[in-house]
Amino acid sequence: MKILVLNCGSSSAKYMVYDWDAKNIMCKGIVERVTIGGSFCEHEATGRDKVKIERECPTHREAVELILELLVNPEHGVLKDVKEIDAVGHRVVHGGERFAKSVIIDDEVIKAFKEIQDLAPLHNPANILGIEAAVGILPDVPHMAVMDTAWHQTMKPPQFIYALPYDWYEKNKVRRYGFHGTSLLYVAKRAAVLLGKDPFDINLILLHVGNGVSANAVKKGISYDTSMGFTPQEGLVMGTRAGDFDAAVGFYMMQKLNLSPKDMETIINKKSGLLGITGKFTDRRDVLEAMADGDKRAELAFELECYRLKKYIGAYAAALGGVDAVVWTAGVGEMAPDIRARSMDGLDFMGIKIDPEKNKVAMTRNSESDISAADSKVKVFVIPTDEELVFVEDVVALLENRYDEHTNFKY
Amino acid sequence: MKILVLNCGSSSAKYMVYDWDAKNIMCKGIVERVTIGGSFCEHEATGRDKVKIERECPTHREAVELILELLVNPEHGVLKDVKEIDAVGHRVVHGGERFAKSVIIDDEVIKAFKEIQDLAPLHNPANILGIEAAVGILPDVPHMAVMDTAWHQTMKPPQFIYALPYDWYEKNKVRRYGFHGTSLLYVAKRAAVLLGKDPFDINLILLHVGNGVSANAVKKGISYDTSMGFTPQEGLVMGTRAGDFDAAVGFYMMQKLNLSPKDMETIINKKSGLLGITGKFTDRRDVLEAMADGDKRAELAFELECYRLKKYIGAYAAALGGVDAVVWTAGVGEMAPDIRARSMDGLDFMGIKIDPEKNKVAMTRNSESDISAADSKVKVFVIPTDEELVFVEDVVALLENRYDEHTNFKY
Ligand SMILES: Nc1ncnc2c1ncn2[C@@H]1O[C@H](COP(=O)(O)OP(=O)(O)O)[C@@H](O)[C@H]1O
Ligand SMILES: Nc1ncnc2c1ncn2[C@@H]1O[C@H](COP(=O)(O)OP(=O)(O)O)[C@@H](O)[C@H]1O
Repeated sequence: MKILVLNCGSSSAKYMVYDWDAKNIMCKGIVERVTIGGSFCEHEATGRDKVKIERECPTHREAVELILELLVNPEHGVLKDVKEIDAVGHRVVHGGERFAKSVIIDDEVIKAFKEIQDLAPLHNPANILGIEAAVGILPDVPHMAVMDTAWHQTMKPPQFIYALPYDWYEKNKVRRYGFHGTSLLYVAKRAAVLLGKDPFDINLILLHVGNGVSANAVKKGISYDTSMGFTPQEGLVMGTRAGDFDAAVGFYMMQKLNLSPKDMETIINKKSGLLGITGKFTDRRDVLEAMADGDKRAELAFELECYRLKKYIGAYAAALGGVDAVVWTAGVGEMAPDIRARSMDGLDFMGIKIDPEKNKVAMTRNSESDISAADSKVKVFVIPTDEELVFVEDVVALLENRYDEHTNFKY
Repeated sequence: MKILVLNCGSSSAKYMVYDWDAKNIMCKGIVERVTIGGSFCEHEATGRDKVKIERECPTHREAVELILELLVNPEHGVLKDVKEIDAVGHRVVHGGERFAKSVIIDDEVIKAFKEIQDLAPLHNPANILGIEAAVGILPDVPHMAVMDTAWHQTMKPPQFIYALPYDWYEKNKVRRYGFHGTSLLYVAKRAAVLLGKDPFDINLILLHVGNGVSANAVKKGISYDTSMGFTPQEGLVMGTRAGDFDAAVGFYMMQKLNLSPKDMETIINKKSGLLGITGKFTDRRDVLEAMADGDKRAELAFELECYRLKKYIGAYAAALGGVDAVVWTAGVGEMAPDIRARSMDGLDFMGIKIDPEKNKVAMTRNSESDISAADSKVKVFVIPTDEELVFVEDVVALLENRYDEHTNFKY
């Protein structure tokens, strides 16, 4: 069985073909600059060199066509015929309150996505375009949608309601949704395996720290609270997103600098976070390097990022009434021991204590590590995430008609 | 020695006369509807009936004149002559980064307040008008300013910088300032006394929960972090203020409902918080009563308020690496055992455990209580706040030329 996974952004289309029986990725790639001119595709078949193909893609349809062409290309392809594809899994960023699990896409589902596309104006419209293009070209295979928000639909009102006018929730769907669900689901399940416990019997704090950053409190195996909110800008300090700040600052600066709401959205999403503080860096490697060279603003960015991570660890430990494990994942979580160490520094009083040596060597994106000190009450794990696997598992389970609640998976 | 304390709001002027030698309040009152027509004063001399005097006060000057007239009024007054006043202490909400302690007011200080009045447009302009009116009428006594922000000027950049463009800090002074400083300073000092420890040797979490709500992490006796930020709207759920929420919601709703930045400021400060959630209540007594009667939205407001308090307790405990005591103060902190209990529920794992019986009876605004369980590692106190005392102490110390760092006081 072969699964195509598609992830269309506003000007890009990422893809992967997965061989379910052999359990491996056959190829993956990305078409960039879709709709904006100068488009090209970077394509990589497993075990072969990466190739770059230039081809104008005025719409997402041409991008999907290019991808399918490449998949069967005699030189670069991995399939004889597109008919070998058994199903297509589409990433959809926002499922609103409607979708608490992955679904088979039909007209009704597409209509529902269109109704909530407003909630994720940068992502959902492109996701829908990608679905429509792919369904147009591959009308005979099932298409499934896997959503970033679905995992968090187990949250309860005290965790997801903001203390804002209540009719903004009722009429405008303003609430905390949370994102990064596929990654968080995956590491939650893996943590249960590492703990040797029933996934529905454990409390976890999950820290997905990449360019985007999510903290997730998991109570008895399901998502209880998360740091990203109505949009992916809330919560922790990110590469270019501000995370938590006094919302009144926004209205103050709009008046000072004569900015529009759209300008502000751009600033808090693209010009803030580590970039805002340092003025130049978004990549933590650059921040760490500059800090080592004595750059004070880089040091501030590092301290701020770690301090905010520490506050979320404390907040969620309190929210859960104690935890079994803290889990680090994604680029920074997997690869930055200094950030992990600083963020967990001084938490012995709540049973969290790492082994500095184990922490230092846990720097691969493949292997799972237990970096807790021998006497730590709480386990601390580094678990490389695998969002693709969640996509494929969901798609195959839907295809084989054995798909259940999103939360019921085991890995 | 007699001290007049003045607190001018945009359309009000609160006052108190304190007899330093007898250590008691001689009278206090408030002039309401200043500048907006229909002004009146409610005046209460200690031990006598409250009286209401109607008198038009088109500016703060007339309000201050009315107050001084009442102080020497043969029937309602407490002084023979205004010359008996030895000094005037003025509440100034915002001291910016310039003032880390109370000061004697001179032209230079007034100029500095004017330079930052932009940071607290609802409060500082009125505070300055009050100072100017009082200095005009009582030019021969010293006037002192006591600021809400001063206590928090010990915070360091990782705690007070937002992950926003750094020049917003450098050019526009955008940062976390924190408020409620006089109350927090007072209860921090009292907690040291109750613990029987040097105030500079203890870590505390202070919860000032009134209409406005501040959490404060105190490290080795000084303010380390606090929940209110650039403005008093950030942080916990309040009577009408939203506290923390995804700032992107603001820009989204502005576009949806065609709102201006000023409209948004009004909504997040006056129509949110408990009022936003319940649609009708700001007073916790009403919330608790409605909840007991089965009102689901009141229950949500209660759960939300307590949940957010709990997260701040956890976050600050982590930030401090453990605490000696958690302190509750202000209207709700002193009088609402249910809110305290729910917010601290399940925190045994971090050494915080209350005695339910002690908690239940700690419901006065006068006496200090230790409500911790016998085996609680962390002490939990209810300490009635006394902001007036801080005002008066600061003024007298300045007057007697023995005023030191704001943080160095003992009570
Ligand atoms: N060795 C490393 N040390 C510190 N940070 C790293 C390291 N390797 C990768 N990262 C960081 O991981 C982040 C990207 O995370 P990743 O999860 O790969 O991306 P995304 O969030 O875009 O999916 C970047 O900020 C990068 O600096
Ligand atoms: N018995 C009580 N139970 C619950 N809340 C109370 C009680 N008494 C006072 N409060 C609350 O205290 C809050 C006012 O706090 P206070 O510190 O007096 O005011 P402010 O913050 O305006 O200075 C109100 O919301 C009120 O409901």
